[in-house]
Amino acid sequence: MIKITLPDGSVKEFAANSTPMDVAKSISEGLARNVISAKFNDTTVETSTPLTSDGNLVLFTWNDQEGKKAFWHSSSHIMAQALEELYPGVKLTIGPAIENGFYYDVDFGDQHVSDKDFSKIEQKMLEIARGKHEFKMRAVSKADALAFYKNQGNEFKVELIENLEDGTISFCDHSTFTDLCRGGHIPNTGIVKAVKIMSIAGAYWRGDENKPQLTRVYGVSFPKQKDLKAYLALLEEAKKRDHRKLGKELELFTFSQRVGQGLPLWLPKGAALRERLENFLKKAQKKAGYEMVISPHIGQKELYVTSGHYAKYGEDSFQPIHTPNEGEEFLLKPMNCPHHCEIYKSKPWSYKDLPKRYAEFGTVYRYEQSGELHGLTRVRGFTQDDAHIFCMPDQLDQEFKEVIDLTLYVLNSLGFNDFKAQVSVRDTSNPDKYIGSAKNWEKAEKAIIAAAEAKGLDYVIEEGEAAFYGPKLDFMIKDALGRNWQLGTIQVDYNLPERFDLLYKGSDNESHRPIMIHRAPFGSMERFIALLLEHTGGNFPLWLIPEQVIILSLSEKYEKYAQKVLNLLENHEIRALVDHRNETIGKKIREAEMQKIPYMIIVGEQEAANETISIRKHSEGDQGTVTVEAFATQIKEEIANTLAEFKS
Amino acid sequence: MIKITLPDGSVKEFAANSTPMDVAKSISEGLARNVISAKFNDTTVETSTPLTSDGNLVLFTWNDQEGKKAFWHSSSHIMAQALEELYPGVKLTIGPAIENGFYYDVDFGDQHVSDKDFSKIEQKMLEIARGKHEFKMRAVSKADALAFYKNQGNEFKVELIENLEDGTISFCDHSTFTDLCRGGHIPNTGIVKAVKIMSIAGAYWRGDENKPQLTRVYGVSFPKQKDLKAYLALLEEAKKRDHRKLGKELELFTFSQRVGQGLPLWLPKGAALRERLENFLKKAQKKAGYEMVISPHIGQKELYVTSGHYAKYGEDSFQPIHTPNEGEEFLLKPMNCPHHCEIYKSKPWSYKDLPKRYAEFGTVYRYEQSGELHGLTRVRGFTQDDAHIFCMPDQLDQEFKEVIDLTLYVLNSLGFNDFKAQVSVRDTSNPDKYIGSAKNWEKAEKAIIAAAEAKGLDYVIEEGEAAFYGPKLDFMIKDALGRNWQLGTIQVDYNLPERFDLLYKGSDNESHRPIMIHRAPFGSMERFIALLLEHTGGNFPLWLIPEQVIILSLSEKYEKYAQKVLNLLENHEIRALVDHRNETIGKKIREAEMQKIPYMIIVGEQEAANETISIRKHSEGDQGTVTVEAFATQIKEEIANTLAEFKS
Repeated sequence: MIKITLPDGSVKEFAANSTPMDVAKSISEGLARNVISAKFNDTTVETSTPLTSDGNLVLFTWNDQEGKKAFWHSSSHIMAQALEELYPGVKLTIGPAIENGFYYDVDFGDQHVSDKDFSKIEQKMLEIARGKHEFKMRAVSKADALAFYKNQGNEFKVELIENLEDGTISFCDHSTFTDLCRGGHIPNTGIVKAVKIMSIAGAYWRGDENKPQLTRVYGVSFPKQKDLKAYLALLEEAKKRDHRKLGKELELFTFSQRVGQGLPLWLPKGAALRERLENFLKKAQKKAGYEMVISPHIGQKELYVTSGHYAKYGEDSFQPIHTPNEGEEFLLKPMNCPHHCEIYKSKPWSYKDLPKRYAEFGTVYRYEQSGELHGLTRVRGFTQDDAHIFCMPDQLDQEFKEVIDLTLYVLNSLGFNDFKAQVSVRDTSNPDKYIGSAKNWEKAEKAIIAAAEAKGLDYVIEEGEAAFYGPKLDFMIKDALGRNWQLGTIQVDYNLPERFDLLYKGSDNESHRPIMIHRAPFGSMERFIALLLEHTGGNFPLWLIPEQVIILSLSEKYEKYAQKVLNLLENHEIRALVDHRNETIGKKIREAEMQKIPYMIIVGEQEAANETISIRKHSEGDQGTVTVEAFATQIKEEIANTLAEFKS
Repeated sequence: MIKITLPDGSVKEFAANSTPMDVAKSISEGLARNVISAKFNDTTVETSTPLTSDGNLVLFTWNDQEGKKAFWHSSSHIMAQALEELYPGVKLTIGPAIENGFYYDVDFGDQHVSDKDFSKIEQKMLEIARGKHEFKMRAVSKADALAFYKNQGNEFKVELIENLEDGTISFCDHSTFTDLCRGGHIPNTGIVKAVKIMSIAGAYWRGDENKPQLTRVYGVSFPKQKDLKAYLALLEEAKKRDHRKLGKELELFTFSQRVGQGLPLWLPKGAALRERLENFLKKAQKKAGYEMVISPHIGQKELYVTSGHYAKYGEDSFQPIHTPNEGEEFLLKPMNCPHHCEIYKSKPWSYKDLPKRYAEFGTVYRYEQSGELHGLTRVRGFTQDDAHIFCMPDQLDQEFKEVIDLTLYVLNSLGFNDFKAQVSVRDTSNPDKYIGSAKNWEKAEKAIIAAAEAKGLDYVIEEGEAAFYGPKLDFMIKDALGRNWQLGTIQVDYNLPERFDLLYKGSDNESHRPIMIHRAPFGSMERFIALLLEHTGGNFPLWLIPEQVIILSLSEKYEKYAQKVLNLLENHEIRALVDHRNETIGKKIREAEMQKIPYMIIVGEQEAANETISIRKHSEGDQGTVTVEAFATQIKEEIANTLAEFKS
């Protein structure tokens, strides 16, 4: 008998050589139907793997990330079989599961595959799947494994096997198909009910452009047809909501080849949107006791040598800026913290002065390879809503909690209600990666976890995910399309205060070292606005949207009244514009809908005569006729309902 | 007889060999008493120089810059004589008039001179002055001139003379003293009534550090003792108002060696002050139809090659920033205009869309030698209140006028009422200095002058002072100490639209080139705040000052009431703070006066009981007892009276 411990801590006894599927069956038939993969003692196993010792078992269904991984990995075997059958003589190389689906890199030799063939491949895959073939792992000797692929003439698999150790090699069989494989499959092919070949692309063998070029075939698969349908609809929606597309349509930002890749230019509507977001945070920060500072966008190399950034990132960054004759070297600032440390150092502080909270919308520049750049989410210059809190050790917990409060206020005000916290701590097995003493790291990590607990956050601890200079807490946001984004970093730092020799005079009249907290609720204005665009599809909250109201007159005769309405709305600080064009009202309404302007005001003979306005709401239609005053009150109320004041 | 034309255009006849002083006497005895120098046909002459031909004569008194120059140049002769008499054997080199006074570079040999000797030198100078010795010019041959100084053993003057052409050399004699001199003196030494030796410094012969070191003796002199007194008082006041000193005292900004010279770090109070100034201008700009944009602080070298900045300034600027592996070159942006041109280019425009007015508080970086840096007035990074207007040719006049209106609004709101406009045009004799066609330059220059005329500005035209890319209008401000500052640039540019190939579609459906106007009412935030500090001595207008009110409680018992008053004032958006320290009310008042806080509120038993506050005004004292509401109303009225709304 062996003792199996389940994730809930319960321990059950089973006969030796029982399988994870046996364990699932012992719990419930329903679970057994849904279990598709398993981990035993932190190692991925098959659901059919005999368990021979005591240990911890985790069972996965489609709803688990690990379950999806096994599902897609197994689907890649099915696709490989389909390709071998459809294109005899193809050479398979590697075919892993990825974030959304799987791919296989294949040498098609002289044969060609194009998007016209996708449907044929899908049909073949479904035909194989319907056979309900079991995935069966078996150990093979290195000699046998090599012989198998030499016989096929597949030099890629031979190369892979040559780098493996004899005794660690396994094959997976299903149906008539065999592949070199480490394991981690679903029980049988029949579970795969829906497949879609997504795209093909070129890929070099081992990612090396001097090696043979292969064809990468991307696919995705699901246990139900309706899951595939939902996924494709989501992709379609994501394409519509692509912030690069919306940013262009809504005239928020642009890029110029001449200015440079990854360097956004903010157009008037985008700059105004950014300013509203910044003012919103400034107001809350003021209440929370922050003080704004302004620092330059460059600093002497010496500054970053002091901070440690140069040693860590210098070579892979924008290179130093030299001055004529004077032999100086400056760097574009990649972070605001060294500057804020120097501001702190500009005057002596006593314990009575702390905490000092310096905030800055600081634009920083970080080199990214041009191939890595993407819209506003991966740029070379971006503005952090940065702040650094300098506090005493016994203020750390409280400050950390207040930062969490502020971050939650920001997320809630912008309609992000689905998030988790991630506490990133050291990889304790790799201490050389980090600056600072182990003792300080431990203190900081404990403070973060205590604050997350106190604020009732749903959090996970990720080992080895900390930055080189300190542990941190990130908010992981789920957007309207179910995608995860990392936002709202809060980071404890015991290191920069050491490196900059920051001090304060304690009540004991001795010098002490303050602790630093870095934090940025938005993260960067660029990335946050990209996220907000994709989350809302451009339908920003009313307080934030560039144009709240558009006034459409039924004909030129009412232009004067339209202008009067505009002036009245502007007196109420409502952002409105008039569509002055000589177009039909139908066309004006359709275009206002396209522009996602929340309210349309229609003015014609009746409205002008009665000093009223007719209201249409974006995607909702006619809302009746009211006075401008009543409408202004309604707008103000709607804003007040979605945008609470920050209470510190 | 010769015909002499005076500046008012009047022409008078005089006997040949009449002197400028004869002309002055013919006009009035009063003028003759005050005339101290003259220019004949644009050449500096003595008041005793015989005039031998027809020509234009300008007579100068102490009140003219030219008059002061002659006065100080003459004073340098007097000082040289005094030094020769006090330090026999000294060798004189050169001794010009400068902006405020004069200096003489002297080789004192083995003799020493220190600030303890200043009074002795001044006494000797006054003794010489009282002799009323006439300055008399005489021509000398090169041989005689060389013999004179070789005889003295003065190798410096010998070197100077060797570089002069025979027939152009003159000496000036007064009393027993003779100096090599081109002329331009006051009639006699007796006019100098007050002298002050200001300082001594080291100076290399011909500014070359490989040549002998000399001692530079700085002095200043005046026609009246009270002028000297006033000048010294002004210096004292300027020292008190030095923006570097006030900036430190008021905690507005700081510098860090580690961040780098000339790169200001704005402390919380300074950053908030800047923000208020920026918001003030933003509000007016919004009314004037400007749109804010945001651009990065770097751009590809190509961008500045296109704009022409690289060819003009590249070598003397911060050097290019390279990226790892990709071979790219970026430059710190020295100007915002190329970025705004690219923003304009991001979309096609029609004549109906123009003018487009893009504004940005854009931080730019320009290399200045470290020796040239000075506080906030000469920095390496600064933020321009920049805007670029893209308009059609027939909109230029109107746009230019509106920019003048906005600039006048800014200057008036900040208490600058004494200014002139300077129109800087080409040096037509040096066309290679400028980018763009002569025709375009002429058009632009005419448009500026027409706008200055239409707005009734007091303006002068300065030839050769235009920037390389266009003519401009600057406002020359006179500050409270009578010093001139250049502010509020408005610049027409026909060149960048060419270089960036900017276009709009005209009503004729053809492509046309827009005209660009660059403008910045503050110039730069850094320099403007420096000027404002020195102009106001830190007593900023109430709407702008960091802290408007400080609340001082008579004892700890009234702290709670003080806090209540603070909250009430904050509800009125009045910037207030409480002096919580356990100090006497006398000390609190003295320190609040030092901090230049406009209003002090004193709260004690009576105030707390009656819910009132006692008011003291900065440097004015007690103002009586009122309610918080009444005080808030008073503050708002005071602000409304000094800060009008911009009317576009």
